[in-house]
Amino acid sequence: MIAVSTEKLLYRFGNEVAEGDHSMTSLLGGKGAGLAEMTSLSVPVPPGFTITTDVCRTFLYTGELPPELDAQVQEGLRWLEDVTGKSFGDSANPLLLSVRSGAPISMPGMMDTVLNIGLNNECVWGLADVSQSPRFALDSFRRLLLMFGTVVLGMPRKLFTDAGDVAPESDANIAQLELQSLIKRYQQLYVEHTGSEFPQDPQMQLQRAVLAVFASWNSERARFYRKMNGIPDELGTAVTIQAMVFGNQGEDSGTGVGFTRNPSTGVKEIFAEFLPNAQGEDIVAGTRTPLGITELQRRMPPVYDELIRVTQRLEGHYRDAQDFEFTIESGKLFLLQTRSAKRTAQAAVRMAVDMAHEGLITQQQALLRVNPESLPEILMPQLDLSSLPAVLTQGLPASPGAAVGRIALSSPAAIALQQGGKAAILVTEETTADDIQGMAAARGFLTARGGATSHAAVVARGMGKCCITSAKNITFSHDHRYISIGGKTFREGDWLSIDGGTGRVYGGQLPTRQAAEENEALDELLAWAMEDGECAVRANADTPADATLARRNGATGIGLCRTEHMFFEGQRLRHVRTMILATNAEERVRALDILLPMQQADFEAIFRIMAPLPVTIRLLDPPLHEFLPSLEEITAELAEMHTAEDWTRCIELDAMRSRARALAETNPMMGHRGCRLSLTYPEILEMQVRAILLAALRVRGEGFDPLPEIMVPLVASEEEMRELANMIRSTAEQVELETGLSCPYRIGTMIELPRAAICASSIAQHVHFISFGTNDLTQMTYGFSRDDAPRYLDTYLQRGLLEADPFVTIDEKGVGQLIAMAIRSVRAVDPSIKIGVCGEHGGDSKSIQFFRKLGVDYVSCSPARIPVAQLAAAQSLIA
Amino acid sequence: MIAVSTEKLLYRFGNEVAEGDHSMTSLLGGKGAGLAEMTSLSVPVPPGFTITTDVCRTFLYTGELPPELDAQVQEGLRWLEDVTGKSFGDSANPLLLSVRSGAPISMPGMMDTVLNIGLNNECVWGLADVSQSPRFALDSFRRLLLMFGTVVLGMPRKLFTDAGDVAPESDANIAQLELQSLIKRYQQLYVEHTGSEFPQDPQMQLQRAVLAVFASWNSERARFYRKMNGIPDELGTAVTIQAMVFGNQGEDSGTGVGFTRNPSTGVKEIFAEFLPNAQGEDIVAGTRTPLGITELQRRMPPVYDELIRVTQRLEGHYRDAQDFEFTIESGKLFLLQTRSAKRTAQAAVRMAVDMAHEGLITQQQALLRVNPESLPEILMPQLDLSSLPAVLTQGLPASPGAAVGRIALSSPAAIALQQGGKAAILVTEETTADDIQGMAAARGFLTARGGATSHAAVVARGMGKCCITSAKNITFSHDHRYISIGGKTFREGDWLSIDGGTGRVYGGQLPTRQAAEENEALDELLAWAMEDGECAVRANADTPADATLARRNGATGIGLCRTEHMFFEGQRLRHVRTMILATNAEERVRALDILLPMQQADFEAIFRIMAPLPVTIRLLDPPLHEFLPSLEEITAELAEMHTAEDWTRCIELDAMRSRARALAETNPMMGHRGCRLSLTYPEILEMQVRAILLAALRVRGEGFDPLPEIMVPLVASEEEMRELANMIRSTAEQVELETGLSCPYRIGTMIELPRAAICASSIAQHVHFISFGTNDLTQMTYGFSRDDAPRYLDTYLQRGLLEADPFVTIDEKGVGQLIAMAIRSVRAVDPSIKIGVCGEHGGDSKSIQFFRKLGVDYVSCSPARIPVAQLAAAQSLIA
Repeated sequence: MIAVSTEKLLYRFGNEVAEGDHSMTSLLGGKGAGLAEMTSLSVPVPPGFTITTDVCRTFLYTGELPPELDAQVQEGLRWLEDVTGKSFGDSANPLLLSVRSGAPISMPGMMDTVLNIGLNNECVWGLADVSQSPRFALDSFRRLLLMFGTVVLGMPRKLFTDAGDVAPESDANIAQLELQSLIKRYQQLYVEHTGSEFPQDPQMQLQRAVLAVFASWNSERARFYRKMNGIPDELGTAVTIQAMVFGNQGEDSGTGVGFTRNPSTGVKEIFAEFLPNAQGEDIVAGTRTPLGITELQRRMPPVYDELIRVTQRLEGHYRDAQDFEFTIESGKLFLLQTRSAKRTAQAAVRMAVDMAHEGLITQQQALLRVNPESLPEILMPQLDLSSLPAVLTQGLPASPGAAVGRIALSSPAAIALQQGGKAAILVTEETTADDIQGMAAARGFLTARGGATSHAAVVARGMGKCCITSAKNITFSHDHRYISIGGKTFREGDWLSIDGGTGRVYGGQLPTRQAAEENEALDELLAWAMEDGECAVRANADTPADATLARRNGATGIGLCRTEHMFFEGQRLRHVRTMILATNAEERVRALDILLPMQQADFEAIFRIMAPLPVTIRLLDPPLHEFLPSLEEITAELAEMHTAEDWTRCIELDAMRSRARALAETNPMMGHRGCRLSLTYPEILEMQVRAILLAALRVRGEGFDPLPEIMVPLVASEEEMRELANMIRSTAEQVELETGLSCPYRIGTMIELPRAAICASSIAQHVHFISFGTNDLTQMTYGFSRDDAPRYLDTYLQRGLLEADPFVTIDEKGVGQLIAMAIRSVRAVDPSIKIGVCGEHGGDSKSIQFFRKLGVDYVSCSPARIPVAQLAAAQSLIA
Repeated sequence: MIAVSTEKLLYRFGNEVAEGDHSMTSLLGGKGAGLAEMTSLSVPVPPGFTITTDVCRTFLYTGELPPELDAQVQEGLRWLEDVTGKSFGDSANPLLLSVRSGAPISMPGMMDTVLNIGLNNECVWGLADVSQSPRFALDSFRRLLLMFGTVVLGMPRKLFTDAGDVAPESDANIAQLELQSLIKRYQQLYVEHTGSEFPQDPQMQLQRAVLAVFASWNSERARFYRKMNGIPDELGTAVTIQAMVFGNQGEDSGTGVGFTRNPSTGVKEIFAEFLPNAQGEDIVAGTRTPLGITELQRRMPPVYDELIRVTQRLEGHYRDAQDFEFTIESGKLFLLQTRSAKRTAQAAVRMAVDMAHEGLITQQQALLRVNPESLPEILMPQLDLSSLPAVLTQGLPASPGAAVGRIALSSPAAIALQQGGKAAILVTEETTADDIQGMAAARGFLTARGGATSHAAVVARGMGKCCITSAKNITFSHDHRYISIGGKTFREGDWLSIDGGTGRVYGGQLPTRQAAEENEALDELLAWAMEDGECAVRANADTPADATLARRNGATGIGLCRTEHMFFEGQRLRHVRTMILATNAEERVRALDILLPMQQADFEAIFRIMAPLPVTIRLLDPPLHEFLPSLEEITAELAEMHTAEDWTRCIELDAMRSRARALAETNPMMGHRGCRLSLTYPEILEMQVRAILLAALRVRGEGFDPLPEIMVPLVASEEEMRELANMIRSTAEQVELETGLSCPYRIGTMIELPRAAICASSIAQHVHFISFGTNDLTQMTYGFSRDDAPRYLDTYLQRGLLEADPFVTIDEKGVGQLIAMAIRSVRAVDPSIKIGVCGEHGGDSKSIQFFRKLGVDYVSCSPARIPVAQLAAAQSLIA
């Protein structure tokens, strides 16, 4: 039981009286507090009063209203009648009221509202006289009957809609007759359905409407909404009872909505529309075309001036762009609502930067005004959906942006389309490491399997391309030349449009909005974000192209350069396979000797772009069988060999098949990969370390100042790390001996196994830096294979068993605790060791805030996500 | 630098003088301290003195001996000459010395020894006279030359062996001549190889021998041995200089070795051999057949009596069976060595129990005397290897015991052999869940792949059968009708013998020793082990047969009953597949309704055997695709279908193929399994819970008192556990409602994911018990797939990157820390919650000791391992 103050159950506002203010949101709800605040600012609002949330709670707990309420309401009504000059229930000039809900936390559309309270069979004619519009008065009454019936009495809406309606374009006289007959039918429905007449007594209307609004707090949809949004059930709602004003009282009346700044571009200019002699719903219904706000200026200059003054004051007061509604009743301006304006990402950035320049907010506040996750909207191309195209199917929005192109059902097809100058969208079951060239050729990827951190998703984010994974209702024809998407058949070369921001797939060639090349406001905001040097954001970048983008986006280094992607390129794969098929170390070394200059050249290019910033290169990570064709492919090719000239290929394939069989693994994610490869095939490590250092030396010779960081993946124990660090150092010493040159380099390791996190302090003794590989750490900690998890993660998310996909947002309670523990133990031994994060979570703003709290020195993410990460990191510093 | 006490550098023993005792092992080494102790006990030992380890350390750090040493050695020598009546370097009756190493921790064979110091071209003839055997004297001199050359001067042994030898069977005169010429040649080798003569000066011989023994502390092999065994490098070795005694001085001399109790059976009886007029090496070389010890009793009754008295005293003193060496020189008995006797497992048990009865040791001490890991030697059949059969190949000793039988290359073949009354050994690449019937039919398993915790290994230990995994050099013919093992071809039905204790494979039918049905001593020891009620050992048991064995072995309950094995039996698999192929919940429920009574019957049988002990039943764990044939099998069968009558089967196979494809997983270990199945297919959980409770109710009706514990696998989060506990409870309520009966049951979960360990305290709030599934926890924490890890674990173990296979012995630093953390946090919230371990580690004695330290309430292991676990648990309580 919550005690109700018996002293004051309602708070008045309007006519220069404001008993509340915006600090009283929990008592008066957002709407009530806002109206009180506007009144204090001398903003003209229609007067009214707000019944507190306390009253609501009493009602909810006891089922009864406080006995003192009625007297206070009557007193409030008398005051309202005084200030409006109208009387509630007066048949000549009736005071009409709106009864609206208003919770402390906004729950848009969840609770009920009843308008036009105070009309009945008599008063409606008084309103007709006063408004000079019988049609308006009758329609208002019709609306009251409908809203009261459905909201207060729970009558089915269908009853009313089945009774017919009046066409908006009807002649005034005909409409009046039709409305009169409709009102009669509506009132009959009350008798038929509830057994009672519609209450003609305005007091009765008001009382029942208030109770209905309170009761709507516990409607099923409201409870569901609160549960989904974590809003406590015990808050309750306030009820605001407000005099209605009418913009349709003649040519000196009108109504409008507007923004203090352009909500689409953010430009500082009033952006509003106006309809003379009209009501708000006329704008919403779109039956009349609103005029530009300059028309108001022309017609009623003093009202326009007042509107500008008032809304500016509101913006200045709230220090944010406002979205407002106004009504002019007989030349008098009323503000009905003001609230923080919804805006596009672009507008949010522009407004934040402008307002900081104007001194309205600080730079830090400006940084907090933009949601980092909204930035891809600005940075990536977007589909133009104004034609309202049909959605074919939907999948996981795995990488934002949009792509429009021709369907390619395989990597070679995508390459062929690109070579023919055509945009391609790669559509496959899922992608694997050897699709990398096809992916480079395509504009976007659509896959039927895989989750938010599947291969396709990771590569897409890395390349800054759009990607949808686990799309439903996609089936591939047996020969992979046709597909069916959402029941429609497509063939290779057909147009498709995909939206990586929403996961929606559209047929055909939709128009797109390209991302602006230059964005001054964003550049300035990000410059502020980076002013505090603490917020280091590196890039995950495997290629010179990635590195260039990373540099342009202000990366402070490369936090993860995966060397295996380089192994798939062009002619290299052949040599990689020779290396894998080698039956002894000597043969392996020969193949590696061919690969060395190629890797070296890769690293040289990246070092030139990034110097003097650090470049963290991860040694070979995936199991070797990933570089071989699948057993099925080999077997299929072997089955087609009949002639003698195939002999050599046959032998080669047979060798490949035995090796692929020998290397096959039940659980490759936990198999022979990462540093386990370096320990069993030390030649591979030696080649890579050699290529890294030779590249650095070469680039130094050219006058650059590269800083290579060699990172060992999948370390589980101190013993491994000690051995691997020794192997790297001894290779480096040999390179130094051979070349007579030396360059600084660092050794580090990924912490991506639970055991590495547990033993982090002992592992860290052997390295200069550690970097959390949060993808694998999440996989192992949860025992969720990211390739397989989409099958049940959906169920988990739907049933609330997971708050978020743990591969997108770091799991703070589990994986996060492991990371926190590791950092604590490592810092205790070596407070200055550099600690990074290079999993996908390094680009997720919520995760970044968590990592910053733990004292991580840098995060590393896809080049395209760098702005997101920079902003998120800056915000976490401010918070 | 370690300070050396300048006061006392050597300690005398013998002739009733004992300057040291057995507590001074770190100063005098094991040998020196033991000789001193024997002297104190008035055991006759040849006199001598021990130079301390302090001297060794000084030498090792400074390269020089302390200046005071020489004077003390000379003083010691004079004392030795006094008590022996011989003179060092005397040409008539020379005192000969042995110079032996003796470290504080035994390092057998790692350091050097020089015997017969004091002989030269002159003294040798004195010894010949005294010993009446020129051949013995010359041979002793030859040995001194060889040992001194190789050990002290580092001459290659090959130099000496190339110089020839004297045949043992040579006539005495011929041998004497040959020895003289050999001694001449040996002395020439010294000049040729070192440029100097062999030092004829006995003092010089002694000094250099002592230095050589000290130096051998730092030999490569000694350093390697210490590193492997964790012995600190700074201990150093002592050097014992002792008068040599000779058992070959005539018929009143002799030598022998023996045990105070039978080292093979443990029976309390002297077990010794004796050779008159002989030296110790004659027994070792086997050139003469030793006599039973009764012969000594017959020939020299007083000496025999003294020997019995002395060795009894030693056993009483050391409170353990002794292994001793003795020499009789002219009627005088000398003990040369005594040490704790090596013994078989059976002897260890018998001795421990007997000695406790004799009051020599307490029951607790008796429990500590037996290595739990040695018990399988008693409990399982063993190969009789007395014919020294050739080893075909070797693999991982995955489950102990031995098996002899005919090769079966598939499960059906094993079943056919068994049905034909023949013993089968199943030889396959690896086994899978659907081999379970073939495995039940076979005596033992030999696989070419998989580690110590592969399917074959786990099932073998569960069934108490012998198993070798990852055997090298096994190849299977294309049609799987032949195999090659170590280069030899075998076909199905050929005999094979395998030793699961050593991992060795032999061709043919070797004889075996069966394990004794009754073993009173072991039963008594285990009864003591279980006397303290705290040591709860449960069994992992899936079948009534397992349960019966578990009960017989004294299990306190079943800690893990896997329900999936039941799904493979007989006709059930067909219904399981129908359930999997179901496309909706309704069809699935229909198939489950058929399976329910089968599962219920399984549980009833187990409850009857175990009541009133708890039976922990794990809900379905493996991914569903494990129950379907592999894609390859389906495709192969489809390829062979041509006729019309195959039509139905074709459709069935095609459906199975689509489902198998849809269910295929990249990393099944981290896939759609465990409680994820229960959450996505709640019907399966409902069927299993229903079967468990209906079974319990039925058995209660029969007057039993069953206690089912329902265990949920692979839980990762509190949210899952809350939901699953609700599902179980609501099914139980329904059963109660339907039957009107109720029975007690408990809900628990496995902690087998790192995240579950991290979040254990919140998960534990929803259960009555938790049980660590250490197999999966080890897999996930290390990121080691146990199916794939054998490829690199070998390398890891060989290179010292792992101390032990983490799937056999719990990894205390990593996985163990996670368990410790989980237990701490769970106990903090609920001190009384029951905590168990049901992974393979529950049967490993070292792991059990670790778990007990953490406060685990019970461990659960294969029924056959129960005695091991009981003993290990009891030991951990004592420690």
